[in-house]
Amino acid sequence: MRMYDLILKKRNGDELTKEEIDFIVNGYVRGEIPDYQVSAFLMAVYFKGMTKEEISNLTLSFVHSGDVADLSSIEGIKVDKHSTGGVGDKISLIIIPLVASLGIPVAKMSGRGLGHTGGTIDKLESIVGFRTELDSNEFIHNVNTYKMAIVGQTANLTPADKKIYALRDVTATVDSIPLIASSIMSKKIASGSDAIVLDVKVGSGAFMKNLEDAEELAKTMVDIGKSLNRKTIAVLTNMDQPLGHEVGNANEIKEVIDVLSNKGAEDETTIALTIASHMAVLGGAYDDFDSAFNALKAKIESGDAIDKFKEFIRIQGGNPEIVDHPELLPQAKNHIEIKAPSSGYITSIDAESIGISAMHLGAGRRTKEDQIDFAAGITLTKKIGDQVDAGDTICILHTNLEDIDEARHVAQSAFSISEEKPEPVKYIYKIIQ
Amino acid sequence: MRMYDLILKKRNGDELTKEEIDFIVNGYVRGEIPDYQVSAFLMAVYFKGMTKEEISNLTLSFVHSGDVADLSSIEGIKVDKHSTGGVGDKISLIIIPLVASLGIPVAKMSGRGLGHTGGTIDKLESIVGFRTELDSNEFIHNVNTYKMAIVGQTANLTPADKKIYALRDVTATVDSIPLIASSIMSKKIASGSDAIVLDVKVGSGAFMKNLEDAEELAKTMVDIGKSLNRKTIAVLTNMDQPLGHEVGNANEIKEVIDVLSNKGAEDETTIALTIASHMAVLGGAYDDFDSAFNALKAKIESGDAIDKFKEFIRIQGGNPEIVDHPELLPQAKNHIEIKAPSSGYITSIDAESIGISAMHLGAGRRTKEDQIDFAAGITLTKKIGDQVDAGDTICILHTNLEDIDEARHVAQSAFSISEEKPEPVKYIYKIIQ
Repeated sequence: MRMYDLILKKRNGDELTKEEIDFIVNGYVRGEIPDYQVSAFLMAVYFKGMTKEEISNLTLSFVHSGDVADLSSIEGIKVDKHSTGGVGDKISLIIIPLVASLGIPVAKMSGRGLGHTGGTIDKLESIVGFRTELDSNEFIHNVNTYKMAIVGQTANLTPADKKIYALRDVTATVDSIPLIASSIMSKKIASGSDAIVLDVKVGSGAFMKNLEDAEELAKTMVDIGKSLNRKTIAVLTNMDQPLGHEVGNANEIKEVIDVLSNKGAEDETTIALTIASHMAVLGGAYDDFDSAFNALKAKIESGDAIDKFKEFIRIQGGNPEIVDHPELLPQAKNHIEIKAPSSGYITSIDAESIGISAMHLGAGRRTKEDQIDFAAGITLTKKIGDQVDAGDTICILHTNLEDIDEARHVAQSAFSISEEKPEPVKYIYKIIQ
Repeated sequence: MRMYDLILKKRNGDELTKEEIDFIVNGYVRGEIPDYQVSAFLMAVYFKGMTKEEISNLTLSFVHSGDVADLSSIEGIKVDKHSTGGVGDKISLIIIPLVASLGIPVAKMSGRGLGHTGGTIDKLESIVGFRTELDSNEFIHNVNTYKMAIVGQTANLTPADKKIYALRDVTATVDSIPLIASSIMSKKIASGSDAIVLDVKVGSGAFMKNLEDAEELAKTMVDIGKSLNRKTIAVLTNMDQPLGHEVGNANEIKEVIDVLSNKGAEDETTIALTIASHMAVLGGAYDDFDSAFNALKAKIESGDAIDKFKEFIRIQGGNPEIVDHPELLPQAKNHIEIKAPSSGYITSIDAESIGISAMHLGAGRRTKEDQIDFAAGITLTKKIGDQVDAGDTICILHTNLEDIDEARHVAQSAFSISEEKPEPVKYIYKIIQ
């Protein structure tokens, strides 16, 4: 088999066999196929796409390039959840205790943030003592005992995808749906779950800017899941503005506490309950969505959900007192209010700009080596549809830095205000299964 | 400027500026842009094409990456000729003395052969003493005095094209018309000619298998020529079978002598006269094609053309006696006749197979380092449309090798015989100008 012939085959739009895909992936990881042939191949995939069969085989090839988590000693159906990435997206933190409160095991492997999006692991580490490096015995013990545990992604998870992603990133071949779908699904499958709920973000702050592309990505991922015997559901959710009111790390933990204490923002609460309900159904705890939804809502209203969050923090080594005393979380020295320049209605809040502003304040990483300031972040005091008068505070920047001109400028420019009241925001667009 | 953005721009189908194309070409030659970005870019070009403007700019960028021949001290309009490559293609050798016999300067720079196609320089070197490494003074003196000279391509002609071609060759991005056209035209323009006649081969033995693709390539090259102020004409000629009867080196020289002595095969004579006539018109010697054609035909019939060939050999250091005594050319020890397996008409002779068979006999190079046996080659005793009886000799293999099973097998399989008489072969399809 020669790589040249496989580039030609894909370029001409023919379907590659499993053996051919394995040859490319394994050959590249072993350094036997050079970067320049793989990048030409990836560009051919960008233009010619891949069949369902090819995408499944690519996903499997990524999975087998590294470690595969063995969760077989955990009782029950292990349901994982994945978000394609947004700003202020703390849904994973809400659903871990929420779903676990129903007795469904949540064995979560998560990553760190880079650029304008945050990472679940970073957010949790703003709780003093919280450990995200459990060994596999403790991880499995916690899931079996408490129905929940979280751990940082191991270094050797889908190394082939990592190497290929790095090449895509410098050759303008990132935004290819077969490549995005196989990259995401390979990590989920290597993480060992039996079923997967995908939160596919759509909008100005998401990777997928329009519903059509998001739907195609969602369908492609659901197809991969089905072909590899993982029950998979995708929920298409709005990312035309940041989720909830808090963007950062410690302040996002505060908002998680609000949602689990039945005091959350409407968008975040609705999306979290929807995703958690699908997880509960896939996990076999409920037969239908509505029963699951009502049960989970009751868990929030009864206080069981917030108690479960306390337990989650405790078993991972963190201080659960932050739930009742959020002031124990890291606090920034400076709080800068951004004002509305004119009166009217908020018509859009560019999520990517808010994410970048938060990064400039210290809440995120420009490069992998950057340190995060857990206290930094942004509070959105207004959201799309809210009425404002000129001079009203629209958001507050929290930071320990002094020079924040750039962050202030980017945050201010994220807001658009118009005299006309915008259409109400739809939180959930569609379910693909 | 970042290469990433330029890959993205081309991938999205937008037009690159001259500065952007220069950035890519120069950055790659200097080693500042890595192979893997250029190969992704080339694949994007394969799919999205290039505008006329982009193709001109790419051609110019290739030209300026290396040496540009200065032929300004040669009097008259310097007309060059280029073939896109065929098997048994000795047209260049015929037209040099033929066009020069009209007093039109022919300053020819040529390459060597690789794989199944031969090279003009190799063929001439089968004449003992023939020098193809003239210095520029001797080259220009010969053209001014005798109206003809040939020299091997300098090492530093269009180095950017060489480097990019090597990358295309391993990434399945060779057959892109903008890339082929700019590669060919950059070499012609760097060689210093004022006008160019292109022989674009079409058919099973050519790079362009069908008339539509060949026409697109021809139009693209003519457009490049026009945009860079070189009068350019393309002649689309048949390559469904090897040209003439001889394929090799010394035996092709014999056939050149035949054509120039008015004893040539019809296909070769017609194509050579057509191309030479266009050169004569572009060179300003004649106003119209027919007058040029008749004048050139007269040069062949009068013996002037063959005398000019003798002069050509003499001034380049070779022995002109080979013209009257072709037996002085290298002779192979073994001559193996291939027989018709059945009776009927020859309906096709796969030119690529004949080229590969000749290579196996020693007439060509598998790799750049291989030595050529000038005596090796193939004589086609039958051509398309000829009637044969089973057992008739259809071709003769000339070689100094003993083990020629592969060559014999490939040559035999190149011929197709059918009971039905095929349509007459058309030698010239079209003129594009």
